[in-house]
This record gives sequence, C-alpha cells and structure tokens, in this order.
Amino acid sequence: MNQNEMLTLLEGVKSGQISTDEALLKLKVKPFEDLGYAKPDHHRSLRQGAAEVIYGERKSYEQICGIAASMLAAGTDSILITRLSPEAAEALKKDFELQGFTYYPVAKIGIVGECKSPQSEGKIIVATGGTSDIPVAEEAALTAEFLGSRVLRLYDVGVSGLHRLLSYKEELASARVVIAIAGMEGALASVIGGLTNAPVIGVPTSVGYGASFGGVAALLSMLNSCASGVSVVNIDNGFGAGYIASMINKLKIEN
Amino acid sequence: MNQNEMLTLLEGVKSGQISTDEALLKLKVKPFEDLGYAKPDHHRSLRQGAAEVIYGERKSYEQICGIAASMLAAGTDSILITRLSPEAAEALKKDFELQGFTYYPVAKIGIVGECKSPQSEGKIIVATGGTSDIPVAEEAALTAEFLGSRVLRLYDVGVSGLHRLLSYKEELASARVVIAIAGMEGALASVIGGLTNAPVIGVPTSVGYGASFGGVAALLSMLNSCASGVSVVNIDNGFGAGYIASMINKLKIEN
Amino acid sequence: MNQNEMLTLLEGVKSGQISTDEALLKLKVKPFEDLGYAKPDHHRSLRQGAAEVIYGERKSYEQICGIAASMLAAGTDSILITRLSPEAAEALKKDFELQGFTYYPVAKIGIVGECKSPQSEGKIIVATGGTSDIPVAEEAALTAEFLGSRVLRLYDVGVSGLHRLLSYKEELASARVVIAIAGMEGALASVIGGLTNAPVIGVPTSVGYGASFGGVAALLSMLNSCASGVSVVNIDNGFGAGYIASMINKLKIEN
Amino acid sequence: MNQNEMLTLLEGVKSGQISTDEALLKLKVKPFEDLGYAKPDHHRSLRQGAAEVIYGERKSYEQICGIAASMLAAGTDSILITRLSPEAAEALKKDFELQGFTYYPVAKIGIVGECKSPQSEGKIIVATGGTSDIPVAEEAALTAEFLGSRVLRLYDVGVSGLHRLLSYKEELASARVVIAIAGMEGALASVIGGLTNAPVIGVPTSVGYGASFGGVAALLSMLNSCASGVSVVNIDNGFGAGYIASMINKLKIEN
Amino acid sequence: MNQNEMLTLLEGVKSGQISTDEALLKLKVKPFEDLGYAKPDHHRSLRQGAAEVIYGERKSYEQICGIAASMLAAGTDSILITRLSPEAAEALKKDFELQGFTYYPVAKIGIVGECKSPQSEGKIIVATGGTSDIPVAEEAALTAEFLGSRVLRLYDVGVSGLHRLLSYKEELASARVVIAIAGMEGALASVIGGLTNAPVIGVPTSVGYGASFGGVAALLSMLNSCASGVSVVNIDNGFGAGYIASMINKLKIEN
Amino acid sequence: MNQNEMLTLLEGVKSGQISTDEALLKLKVKPFEDLGYAKPDHHRSLRQGAAEVIYGERKSYEQICGIAASMLAAGTDSILITRLSPEAAEALKKDFELQGFTYYPVAKIGIVGECKSPQSEGKIIVATGGTSDIPVAEEAALTAEFLGSRVLRLYDVGVSGLHRLLSYKEELASARVVIAIAGMEGALASVIGGLTNAPVIGVPTSVGYGASFGGVAALLSMLNSCASGVSVVNIDNGFGAGYIASMINKLKIEN
Amino acid sequence: MNQNEMLTLLEGVKSGQISTDEALLKLKVKPFEDLGYAKPDHHRSLRQGAAEVIYGERKSYEQICGIAASMLAAGTDSILITRLSPEAAEALKKDFELQGFTYYPVAKIGIVGECKSPQSEGKIIVATGGTSDIPVAEEAALTAEFLGSRVLRLYDVGVSGLHRLLSYKEELASARVVIAIAGMEGALASVIGGLTNAPVIGVPTSVGYGASFGGVAALLSMLNSCASGVSVVNIDNGFGAGYIASMINKLKIEN
Amino acid sequence: MNQNEMLTLLEGVKSGQISTDEALLKLKVKPFEDLGYAKPDHHRSLRQGAAEVIYGERKSYEQICGIAASMLAAGTDSILITRLSPEAAEALKKDFELQGFTYYPVAKIGIVGECKSPQSEGKIIVATGGTSDIPVAEEAALTAEFLGSRVLRLYDVGVSGLHRLLSYKEELASARVVIAIAGMEGALASVIGGLTNAPVIGVPTSVGYGASFGGVAALLSMLNSCASGVSVVNIDNGFGAGYIASMINKLKIEN
Repeated sequence: MNQNEMLTLLEGVKSGQISTDEALLKLKVKPFEDLGYAKPDHHRSLRQGAAEVIYGERKSYEQICGIAASMLAAGTDSILITRLSPEAAEALKKDFELQGFTYYPVAKIGIVGECKSPQSEGKIIVATGGTSDIPVAEEAALTAEFLGSRVLRLYDVGVSGLHRLLSYKEELASARVVIAIAGMEGALASVIGGLTNAPVIGVPTSVGYGASFGGVAALLSMLNSCASGVSVVNIDNGFGAGYIASMINKLKIEN
Repeated sequence: MNQNEMLTLLEGVKSGQISTDEALLKLKVKPFEDLGYAKPDHHRSLRQGAAEVIYGERKSYEQICGIAASMLAAGTDSILITRLSPEAAEALKKDFELQGFTYYPVAKIGIVGECKSPQSEGKIIVATGGTSDIPVAEEAALTAEFLGSRVLRLYDVGVSGLHRLLSYKEELASARVVIAIAGMEGALASVIGGLTNAPVIGVPTSVGYGASFGGVAALLSMLNSCASGVSVVNIDNGFGAGYIASMINKLKIEN
Repeated sequence: MNQNEMLTLLEGVKSGQISTDEALLKLKVKPFEDLGYAKPDHHRSLRQGAAEVIYGERKSYEQICGIAASMLAAGTDSILITRLSPEAAEALKKDFELQGFTYYPVAKIGIVGECKSPQSEGKIIVATGGTSDIPVAEEAALTAEFLGSRVLRLYDVGVSGLHRLLSYKEELASARVVIAIAGMEGALASVIGGLTNAPVIGVPTSVGYGASFGGVAALLSMLNSCASGVSVVNIDNGFGAGYIASMINKLKIEN
Repeated sequence: MNQNEMLTLLEGVKSGQISTDEALLKLKVKPFEDLGYAKPDHHRSLRQGAAEVIYGERKSYEQICGIAASMLAAGTDSILITRLSPEAAEALKKDFELQGFTYYPVAKIGIVGECKSPQSEGKIIVATGGTSDIPVAEEAALTAEFLGSRVLRLYDVGVSGLHRLLSYKEELASARVVIAIAGMEGALASVIGGLTNAPVIGVPTSVGYGASFGGVAALLSMLNSCASGVSVVNIDNGFGAGYIASMINKLKIEN
Repeated sequence: MNQNEMLTLLEGVKSGQISTDEALLKLKVKPFEDLGYAKPDHHRSLRQGAAEVIYGERKSYEQICGIAASMLAAGTDSILITRLSPEAAEALKKDFELQGFTYYPVAKIGIVGECKSPQSEGKIIVATGGTSDIPVAEEAALTAEFLGSRVLRLYDVGVSGLHRLLSYKEELASARVVIAIAGMEGALASVIGGLTNAPVIGVPTSVGYGASFGGVAALLSMLNSCASGVSVVNIDNGFGAGYIASMINKLKIEN
Repeated sequence: MNQNEMLTLLEGVKSGQISTDEALLKLKVKPFEDLGYAKPDHHRSLRQGAAEVIYGERKSYEQICGIAASMLAAGTDSILITRLSPEAAEALKKDFELQGFTYYPVAKIGIVGECKSPQSEGKIIVATGGTSDIPVAEEAALTAEFLGSRVLRLYDVGVSGLHRLLSYKEELASARVVIAIAGMEGALASVIGGLTNAPVIGVPTSVGYGASFGGVAALLSMLNSCASGVSVVNIDNGFGAGYIASMINKLKIEN
Repeated sequence: MNQNEMLTLLEGVKSGQISTDEALLKLKVKPFEDLGYAKPDHHRSLRQGAAEVIYGERKSYEQICGIAASMLAAGTDSILITRLSPEAAEALKKDFELQGFTYYPVAKIGIVGECKSPQSEGKIIVATGGTSDIPVAEEAALTAEFLGSRVLRLYDVGVSGLHRLLSYKEELASARVVIAIAGMEGALASVIGGLTNAPVIGVPTSVGYGASFGGVAALLSMLNSCASGVSVVNIDNGFGAGYIASMINKLKIEN
Repeated sequence: MNQNEMLTLLEGVKSGQISTDEALLKLKVKPFEDLGYAKPDHHRSLRQGAAEVIYGERKSYEQICGIAASMLAAGTDSILITRLSPEAAEALKKDFELQGFTYYPVAKIGIVGECKSPQSEGKIIVATGGTSDIPVAEEAALTAEFLGSRVLRLYDVGVSGLHRLLSYKEELASARVVIAIAGMEGALASVIGGLTNAPVIGVPTSVGYGASFGGVAALLSMLNSCASGVSVVNIDNGFGAGYIASMINKLKIEN
C-alpha cells in the first residue's frame, strides 16, 4: 500500500464511504514479515514513497521468489529485482506469469507487474563515457523509469572526443537531474558538472584495467570533482543512481 | 550577472525601457578574465544559476583578493570564500569594507556582500554524528544559506544513542533534502536514509583515528549504504554537500 | 580428554577408585601428534576448555580425515570442521559413520560426534543485516551451539529499516553476548552497540560490491564504531565470533 | 542515575518509603540534553550500566566542560574523559575542584569524581609488547579500573623474548579477560591467545615505522590471528578495550 | 662538456687546430667524482645531451654546494637545482656570485649560470587545472626553459569551466608537447588529450583534500585516461615533465 | 579521411580540379555517428593524425563489427582492434574478408586493412624484462607499426642479468623513443633511462605474484624512476605506449 | 659451466694438460643466447655459483622446453623449473627422458638432471605455521636441496599452540638458517627470530581469507618483526627463500 | 655476559681455576629484569650471540637510561642505542661518562662502551642509491661495525648512472654480504643482485615523494626483485639490515 492509496483510504474513512473496520483490515499489514531468511519491509513504500525493490545478488531463486510473494500478498503491485541472473529470471517468469514479469538482460533487471507511468515532466539524462558502461546505465535508466521518471539516454559521449558531448549541450541544460556513468578516469562527471546546473549523480564503473583497480580510479576522480554539483554512489551502482535521480525528479510534484 | 538579472535586462530591452546599446554594455562581461594565476569564470553564475564561490585553500591572500575584485567588477554582488584562514579573513575584512564582509570562524567561511534571502519553503536538514563534525556541518549549512535555502541544524545525533535521532523523526520526514555528516563509522547516513524519503547527501568527515584513515572508513561506509537514497561527496566536503542540497531544494521554484 | 574428564580422573585417583598406573596411562596422551603435514594439538582442549576444531579450507580430504582420526584416537569425542566443501563432507560421512557425522551445507560446517548440551542459561544473539549474510551467521551460530551455548537468530534486521531491529529491543537487552554480522556499510554493529549493554562482537562480511572491497568497508566501519562495546573479528569469520561469544557466555559457569 | 540507584528508588516506591511524586521528580531526567554542539545522553548509564564517558579529542575545553557540567547536573557522579590534553586538564582541575578531578598524563585521561570500587573478583590482564605501548595500555587499564574492575599490568613482554611472557603463564591462566596491546607485528595477541582460555581483546598500536603504516600491520596481524579467542578494536583504542574487558569481567555479577 | 662541445673538439683535432695532447687534457674529465656522500656524474651531460641537475630535497646546503662546485670544475656551465629551500638559496647566492645565481621562489628552483637559449621553434604548453597547481607548473616550465625550449603557460583552465580551455584550442593544436597539470580529479589530461594530436604529459598534483589522497586520485585518473596520447609522471613532478617535454621538443633538431 | 587526404582535396579545389560541390560531399562526413551503443568519432583521424582504433575489451562481437563498419563507411581505410578475443577475431575475419583482416594472437590485436608504411627513419625500441611480458610488448610494437613506425624488439633483457641489456647499448643510443616493459620490480625503465637520451615510456605489466599486486609494484617503481626521462602508462597498456611512441617518433616529419 | 669446472679448466691450461685452443672452445659459450622470446643467461652459473633456474609461470610449454634445451646445450647439467603445471610437467617428462626429469606436484617443481649432493654440514630448517603452507615450504625445501643444502622440515608449528614449536628448540638453536613460512598473521617469523641466533628468512603465504588480503597481513607482520634477525621475501616465494638460505648456508665452504 | 665469556667461565670451572660458588654468582643474572615500563632481556646476548640493543624511538630519556643501567649492571659491556635524538644523546653522554659514550648524529646512533673489534675477514658492502639515503646507510654500517664486522661504504651509486656502480664490480664480487639501500624506485637491490653471488639485503628508504608513498614503492620493488638472492627488511630499517648482515658475515667463524 503506497502513500496515495493510504490517503484515499483515510479520506474514504473521513467521508464515511469506508467503515473503520474495513479500513483497519486494510491497514493491518504487518510492518514487516518474518520469513526467517528475510524480513520484507512492508511499510517502506509508505515511508519512502516508492515501490519495493529486491537486490538479487547472492540470493537464491527460492529466497527471491519468497520475498516477492510476501510483498505481493502485502499489497505491492510492482516489484523491481536487480542483479538478477538469466537463470533465476527464467524461473521467475513462470512463477509470476499472472502478475506479469519482464526481464532486461543487459541491465540484469526483472520487473514483476508494471512500471509506474511518468509522474513528472522533468527528465533524467543518463550519460555514459563508453559502450562498456551501458549495463550500469541501463540499470539506472530502468530503475528511474520503473519509479515513474522520464529518461533520456546519451551513451558513449566520453571526454576524449568532447564534440560528441558538446553536441548535446541543450539537452544537458534542460535536464532536472543528470546521471554521469564512466569507468577508466571517470572525467565525464566533472565535465558534465561544468555544463549543467542540474544536480549530477556520478556512477563510477568497473570498466577499465590495471590501475583502474576495478573502478577505484573513477570513484576517486568523481569524489574529487572540481565541479560543485556532483555527488557519487558506489561503483557500478546504477540502481542507486536511478533511485536517487527519481527521488529528486519527483520532488516538485509530490511535495 | 545572474539569470534573473539577465531576464530582467532582456525584458527591459523588449519593452523598450533599456536601449540595445546599454544592454550590450551590460552583457559584454567577458566569459572569463585572465589574471594569469587564475581565470575567474564570469559566466558560471549565468550557466549554473548560483553566485560565485572561491575555494580559499592553498591560495595566497593576494590571489583571493584579486579574484574577488575581478568578480565584483564583473557584476557579482555576493561571494562565498571557503577554507579561509583567520589571517586572510582579517585582511579581506579591510579590503571589502564597502561591500560588507563577514567571517565565520568555525566553518572557516567568509562572505563578501549579503546572502540570498530564502527562495523556497523547502528545508534542508544538516545532521552530524558528533560534536567534532560541526566545522564541516557549518560549512554545509552556511553554503546552503548563502545560496538561498532554509537550514535546520541537528548536531550530535550519532547512532550509538539512537533515541536522540529518533526524537527528530518528524523533522526528518518533512525535509526536502538531508545532509548526513559523520566521521568514525559514518553509519548516520544509512540510518537517516532509512528514516526519510528525501534524498540524503552523505559527508564523511576526517573525525576519528587509527583505522578511520582520515575519513576513509566513513567514506566507504556511506558509499556502501544499504539505504537506497544516499549519495556521497568527498571527505570533509561540507561546501559540496551544501551546494548540491541547495540545487535540489530550489528545483521546484526555478524550473 | 577435556577438563572435566581430567578432574573426574584425578578425583578417582584421590579416592582410590583408579590406580595411579591406570591414570598415568590415560594421561599419557602426547601433547601433540606429528602427522608430518599436521601436528594436532591434543592438549588444547585441556588448556582451552573446548572441543577441538579443524579449519577445513585448503586442506585435502585426506588431511582432514587424518587429523580427525588422530583426535578421536586421543580421546576427543566431538569435532567441529569449518569451511568444509560438500564433496569432502560426502566422503567424511562414510568414514565417521560410527561416531556420527552431520553436515550443515549453508554454514559449510561438519560435526563429528555430538554437540555439547547447553551449559548455561545465558543466550547469544546472532543478528544479520541481510539475507546474504546468513552463511556467515550460521557458521557463528552452529559453532556457539557446538560449544554448548544457546543461540537466538535474528536475520535480516539491517539498519535501513530500523523498525525491524527495534522490535527486538527486549531480546537485545537480555542477551549475554550479541554477534552483529553485516556486509556493505556494516552499521549494524554500531546501532546494536547502542541498544544493548552486552558485549557486541562485530563480523564484517564480504557481502557487497564495488567499494565494499570484499568486506573492507564493513570491517573499517565496525573498527571505528562509535558505540563503546564493539570488538571485531576478521571478515566472514563466523567461527571466531561464535567461539569468542561462547567463551564469554560460559564465563559465569566455569570460573 | 545508574541501574542500581534506579532499582533502589523503585523498591523505595514499592515499600512506600518514597512517594511516587518524589520518584517521578528523580526519574524526570531528560533522556538527553541539547547543548547545541552536543546532546549528552543521560539515559546511557541506565541503558548500558556504566558511568558516562567523554571522548576529549577535537573537543574544545569549553565543550568538554559544558558536557561534564550537564552530566553532573543530571546525576552522574563520576566522569571519565579520554584523550585529554594537559592544557585542558589544567583548566578542568579548577572547574571541578569540588567534585574532585585527577589527571593521568601518560594515559591522557582525566577523571571527575571517584572510580567505582572493584565489583568483582575477576581480574583483567593488560599486557604490552613493548615500552612504547604503555600510553595505550594505561588508557585501557584506567578505563577498566574506573568502571570497577581489578587490573594486572604486564608491560614489555613482546614475543621476541618469549621467556618473559612464559614466566607469567599462571597469571594468564587465571585471568577473566586479557587485553593484548602491541604495535609493530602485533604477534602478542596470537601468542597470548594460545596460552589462555580467557577471551583476548587485541589492541594494535601505532608504535612502529615504515611498513607498520601507523598500526595497520599490527591491526591486520590481530584480525588474522590463528588463535581462536581473539577479537580486535581500533588502533590505539585503549579505552574501547578497557570498556569491553570490564563489560565481560562484570557479567558474572550483574546478570 | 656537452655533445656539441665534444664534436667541436674532435673536429678541431681532425683539422689540426687542436693538438691531441690538448684534446686529451680536455677529455680527461673523470666519468664521475667521488665526494663520499655523492658521486656527481660528469659524463651524463655527454650521454644525455643535457646540462646537469641537482635534486635539492633532503640534501644539506653543504652537499648541494659541494656537488655544484664539482660540476663547475668538470666544465658544466649551468646547473639547475630543484626543490631548493629559500634559506639554502640565500646561501648559494653568495657562493656562486661569480657564475650568476637566480632563485625562483614559486617553483623553488635555483639556477647557477644561464639558461640555454631556445634551440627549436617548437613550443611546449604548460596548462594547469587551477591556481594552486602553479608551483608545480613553474617547476615544469622553468626546467623546459633551462633546457632550451619555448614555453606557453595556460593556468587555471580546469574542466569545470570548459569554455576557458576551449578558447585556447588553436594554441593546443600548434604545440609540439603539452604538459597537463592538475590535482583533485585530474581530468584535464584526458580532455586536453582529446583536443590535440601532440603527446601529452600528465602531472598529477597533491592539490586537493580527503579522498584525493595527496594526489593519488589525480594520478589514477591520468593513468586511466581514455585519451590515447597521455603518459604520466610522479605526483608533483614538474621537473620530470619539463625534462621529458624538452627531450621530445628538441628531437627534431638534434637527431 | 585523414589529414593528407584532406589537404589533397583542398588543393584540388584550389586548382579547380575538384568542384566545390564534390568537395563538400566528401567533407560532409558527420563528426561522429550515433549507433546508440557507440558514437564512433569520424573526425578523430583528422584531429589526431592517426587511423582509428577500437578497444575491444568488454565489447560484444556485434558492437565491434558495427563500429568498424561505420568507420569504413566514413572513409577510414585501416582499423586497429585491441584486446580482441580469438573467437571474435574468427568472426571478424569473415566479415571483413574484402578489406583484409589479420589477427595477431599473442598481442590479441586484429587489423582491418593494411598498416601504414613507415613514415620516418626514426626507430622505436620495444624492450621487455622477461619472456612473460611479450604479449604486452607485441601490443605496443604492432600498434606503433600500424601507425607507421619502425620497431626494434629487445625481449628478455631484465636487469638481473645486466650484460644482456648492456650488449644493446648502441641500439639504445640510436633509438628515437624506447618503450620499457616490465613486471615484477619494473627496474628496467630506470636502467634504460640511464643508458639513453631518448624519451622512455615505461609500461608496467601485471607479470608477477604476491606483493606485485597485479602490476602495482612495477607501476610505482616506474613512476618513481630516478632516471629523468621516464614517463609511464597504465599497467599492461601496450597500446598506449605504442601510440605515444609513434606520436613522438613522427614529430620530425609531420610538423 | 660452473665456477669449479672453470677453475679446473684454467688449472689444466696452467699445467699444460689442456691446450689453449681446447680451453678456448670450452669457454666460448656465449654469455647469453637469443631465442627471441628469451635470452638464457649462460654465464649466471659462473657469476652466481648456482645451477640455472627457470621460472615456469606464464611461460608456454614450448618456451620452457626451448630455454631448458639451450641451457643443456651450453653445459648446464641440472635445471630447476618452478611454478610448473602438471600438464607441462607431463610433456617435459618425455622431452628430457635422457637427462632424467622428476616432478614434485605439491611444490609444483620439476628437476631436469640430478640435485647437487649436500656440500655442507650446515642445516636449513623449513618451518610452517600450518598445513596449508606446505606447498610453499616444499618449494623452498626442494630448491635448497637442489642447490646442495641439507633441509629439516618442521610443518604445522604455528604460534597458537606454542608447545609444538618449543619442543624443537634444540633444532632451531643448531640450524645455520631458518626459513619461517606462515600465512594469516605470520607471527611465526618473530617467535622463531626470538628463539634462534641464526638468520631467519620469513616467507609470508597467501593462506588466509578476508583481511589477510592474499598474504599482505603476514607480509607486513614479518616486515615489522620485533625480532632483529628476520628478513623477508615476496608472498609465497618459497623458491627465493630456499635460494637465499642455500647461499648463506654454503658461505662457509665456498669463500 | 656473552657466549664467549660464558665459555671461558665454564672452562675455568672445569679446570678448577674458578670455584663453583663464584661461577654460580656470575651466572645468576636474572633472565630479564622487571623495570615496570620495560623488561630488559639479559639472556638475549647469550641466546643470540650479540651485544644488547635499545631501540630509542618513543622512549623517554629516563627509560633509555634505566634500561641501559640495568644492562650494564647485568654484565653487558657495550650497548647500541638506535633512533636516539641529539637531546637525549647529550644527556646520556653525562650519565655514561665512565663507560664511554659516542654519538653519531647522521645515523642517530649512540654507543655506550666500545665496538667489538672485527671478528672476521669477511666484508659487508653498504651501498646506497643516492645521497639522501646516507642516514639509513650509516645506521646499517655502524650496527654491523658495532657487532664486529668490516664494512665498505659505496654511497650514491644509483642505477640511473650505471657506470658508477659497475666501476665497483670487483668489490661487489668479493663481499660476503651486500646491503642495498635505496628510496624512490629501489632498483638498486635488483641490479646488485645480478652482479654478485653474495646474499643481498634490501633496505627500502622513505626517500622520495608523491607515489613513493613513504618508501612503499621501493619496498614493493625490492620484494619483487627479479634477482634471486634478495631479501628485504622494513623501510628505513638500517639497524635490521646491519644486524642480519653481521649475523651472516660471522657464520663462518662462530659455527
């Protein structure tokens, strides 16, 4: 049950359309459920204004399935599953045929149910330095779309060929948030930070070799950005960037 | 010259109140000035919708003074100077007596001219884990206030005594952005991230000793936050956090 | 031969029920045996008041088997084998059919013989931040149970959804020792440290990615805990935590 | 107000010796006080069964003084101040003349009021590898004594001259907890871990040079101890080790 | 004695203008001299085609003076001394009054004798990201000038305000070598690398704080540059960059 | 279209042999093409005077093929593909049969079309410390040859048997650029740097184990070279070294 | 040809038994041979008084075979090949049937020809902390035996059960050199260093997990040893330790 | 009392020249003395065949003085004090006027009493890469001389000017042990390792800046040496190198 549904419920109670007993029943979702191996947080969507997410890595197919079922039972109607292997996706497809299940192999994302339709005119730009950063970028973009944001993808606009990035100056100027995704030296975040007055969320990626140290070079680069509007998430954390960008993008509407 | 002033100017031209020649003169600010040791960027306030900032560390008094003078000559009416030593502040106080100059010793911030008055109802919470994090917190808070945001300070609410933080649950729920500042293990960002649906900007501080490695422990902690809405800036980067928070806080109004 | 058996023996000698010769024979277990590739320490259970443990990683099936046989021959009646692969477990099952052998696949623990029955009323809480930390938690819990302690498992109570943890406040208050197990930012140890006055043993796990650096982020976080009662063991060292917790839990009885 | 005082109070109420109004007044200590720069946690002594502690590093004399005064006003009768500079100690001596104030320059510890008298027969051994580790050891020893534990100091018993350590075998065997403090290669913790069946708390120190990296070598050494009963606290964290050791030492009595 | 002088000498011998005895005398410079604390390499200028350099850091005034005197005695006519403190410079000024001595305090460079006059039309660009990088830049620029190269300085053209750098596109296109000097995220090297087809030598500087780790962030950034023509020298190694740039710049003429 | 072709075109226009319309058509190559997953930079060869390169790692066969086709369509006549797996090479061989395709398995390089014929008399030496460094060395050598430079290979001349290296003193003295490739302690770069007056480009390799940390030891060694003419590229970056060396080698001719 | 053979040869020449021509022929072994991919150093056995060694890692079977053949042709009669995979060993067995070839799978060592017979009464002790360190220990022991030293193996004598090590005190006192091999916290080197007056060579191993960082913990521990006679080689470098120990052990005889 | 003195004593007893009572008195030196802050190890010189050493860093003047007095009282006749500040040396000079006290300011070494006279013909070479490494080299050289070895100093023979080192080939060939001391890239150890068949002890120094990381670059370089006979001690550990070198140098005589 999300915030809007709860408001509607309470207004129904106020107006007498819904009996208090009935309301009680609907509200009596436990704040979390104890599955032993997991305690899905059924109040989070209420508290945080977002549908629920399952981080799939290191979870068995059975665990993912159990958590998702518990959420659906508690009233969630769409679930985002990240870091989902193709094998687990194959299995989930069958289990959640009724609710609908789509798998995005590049992003390794599975979605049970439907994405929210865009709730804002604001636009999030997802930019990458290179082609190899696309899996992280798709994780970010799909997350933001799932949470109800419009997304514009600008892939392979790294700083070694600046004219590519500069040809999108106008788009950068009109975005509400920009997600800058890059491995190697991660300079993209700084350069975009200087070209826009929107908040920039930097996502370092593990793309690179040798002294890139699995993304550390890009991470440090972004943390030390000489442009003022750049904050950073963990290496390869496309989901986090998409989530925060969507949070910011929707501020105008929901507050 | 900021965006609003430029709009006013252009509307003045449109309506005939200002001659094109006069407008031209006002607009002919060079995009940057070459002082040899520095090239102040006079178009940044236009491009980025913010007053200009000088990062004072490792700059001599003469350099800071020269850059500030160049900015004022180019039409900026208030300047934020960060990482400013008391000695340099003393000297600047005399040079900018006319424009007004205030020094905040805890934050090591100097301001030439006036802060913007708050341009939004939205509120930024600046929370710290301990007393020793206050200098970084004040850098963040003053930066956000300088840029026209309202700020609520919650200091010394670290996670080892949770009831202190939990007693401010309502404030956290109503904030538009939260800045979570902590050294040592930096857990504050994650815990706040779970208590609010506002974007959280984590600022690790160098408070701690031994295996805190000058803030690295808190930095890694925040980058790996299990709460989804947390992004991070450099260790002790109060300015950056205040700047981004203000960017986000003002999105509603300016877009 | 453990401490109690030795006491019984000596009292038997004192009372005349056992001849000194017979006692001598029983005591003449060599302090350690030289298998060439290993020197099992037969006096450790005496010195340290605990049954013997074999760390299975990087040992061949033959080596594990040889060490266990030597221990049994020296009078140990139950053996804990950690980091045991399913393949080796399969083989050991046959070899130690007589003594009894149980394999716990999640914890990768094998036990020859029986666990001690609980020797204390005190209770150890084993808490985890997430579902993926369970293998480490089970290693800790089974170790403590093997050594004769009662264990309460609280899994998936990470700090991003504090209400889950707070709903177990009473349990935390009544525990004699708490083991806090978490990957990513490892904040669980600090938060639990502030909620209980029992000693907390933090176990960072390698759960996470990117800047978690295989558990380093959680390790540093726990070492820098702002709560005063937290000490730490190696990344993923569930065994060590269970061992120490049991040591502390049994202090009351054996001293 | 500590746990025992509260029990006495409640029993007074039960027996009618104290009126409920009077009890209410005494209990109405705020859970924490807001000094702006700090929020001293007046319920912690209740929650954690220990007198209050102030971590003095990076706090101004005025802040330390204000926090201590707030604690005393809330009923605490003795306060431990760690990492206290001689200069600040000099000033505090005057402010807290009434309550009594003692400064221990080697440990850099100041104590307002009296230490608790030992509440247990159990003994904590504080051992160091060398002479240079003594300041950290004294921080640990004084903390444990302040909290009501007996302490035996064994200084300069490093592993390069094993006979020194081995001559204290009996003491090690009879201790309830051992604190092993060492810089350089930190091997002391492992060796003691093999000689006792008490829990060992390792404290790596920053004593050393070059590849000791300010205590990292000793920290890693202790985290990887091949002895099973060793847990570790932060580099140079004598206070933490003393606090935990005392927690464990007093378990027998208070539970 | 440099390469050209030696050629002249040999041609003089060939043509009979110089007797073989006289030539022998001039050539009989020892390959190195043994001062005990140093062994100045008198054949290096011959082998490497460059005047001699003294790295002043950690050398006493007496050592620098002794080495310089030995070089002059061996025929060197100009000496570059890097990392020279103002105090040592003051003293050297007196000792080498005859030969001429100039001190450049920003670069901390002292020069005994004269710089070579430019030996090539080629131009080296020395660019910095910010004002604080200037000391390193001056070390590079003066070194290149000392070795006979023309230098163009472009200071404070960091990537957060790209238009500053882009306004010097033509200069970048016409340079023979570019030295890109930046701290913080060090993105300057990559961006310049994409704008020129000259070799770029990146010099990371220790300018920055927190996660810049004394220049490591910039170093890693430059080593991972996505632009192909970038090689890197040590943090703050202005001298090395100037030396290599001059080597490359003079290739055309001397080969 | 490379620089020379463009010059010819423009001279054709000047002389009237080519109509402006025809020239326009030829010049109207888009500066980059948007393939969605990649934006190949068709002006780079013009801007940087070099044929185009595809970095093959982490790119799918389809992506490599698409980028190559786009380049050929835009007029490039030879393409270097680095980090190309044998499997992808097999497939590309068929697709680019017409243009010619050669695969070099040791270097993991594929070339579509022909190498440039050497454009200079200058020679690049590619030296390695050991046999295991050869794959990186071949990447460097083939890159330089592809770009039109002559290359001399000196493999297995590591410093532990100096006479091997010293027997090539003359070759080292006559080279225009030297690429020094070594893993383990990477001392080769320093030693060569002292034997030649050509610029040396150091390439640390990941050859080694233990404390070589995947090439970090060699990287640090080369960055700290006591020889003045050494600059460094990323670990295992043979391509980068070959590219820069060729840039430097061709300076004489093209400027 | 080793030192002794050369001496014999020269004495033969002196005494007239061997003609100078014949001697010349025998001496005319090239100092190294150029196989392209390798330059085997045929004078090393002369220079360094040891048979030749091939480091097998990352070398193809063909390369190993070629180098060995070249050595045999140059007069070496026994060759040690380290880090040799079982597969390559299988193949080499056939190629060097004539010369004799033995493979030691635990140590991953292959030997062509015979070991030298012990040339000294001195004894090298090879001690390990645990069973898992044995592969490294065998590499060390076999290397020392190959080079003509006597070896005593003491395996699994780690410091957590000191009585095992102490029971070999006499052996330790009588050794000429001790090799101390340990992973985890690596304390063995320090403890042995305090028990013997022979030089101790520490070999950290990659045995361990989590914060052992692949042997770094043991490496740092050994480098910071508080015992004075300990020097250290690379992680897992059994060969190096065996080589150096044998060098030291044979000093008495050959000098 | 050292080994020789003890032998003399025992032979005196055997021959009747010394009464057993008298001998007993002389032998009754306690194995260590407990000064509280230190436990000087009076049996070490017996066990390790060396005079006693005090590591002066972080010890107060009073502590050093007390330990030295205790040693002298126990029969030691000469004491080496390392890392001794000039101020403490000044004070010690007065206290030990009787026994004789010499201070070596470059090495920061103080010696109470006399050095042993050389006990062997063998020679230790102490070589440094540069002038700035001399303080570490002197610590090594004086330590070796104190312990009775002959030392040859070769300073400033770094690899960037190989001919300097090569001119001492003969000396290197005739040494029994070589100590190779270098900062920056530390290549000296590898190059010397290839030029001699004596064991080489590498001492990395903290000389350097930037990516030398206080000696880490040189340390890693030496640990990864491609020459086989190199072992390593801690950064700047001149004492350790001198001690081990002397141990090895004296093996011939004492065994």
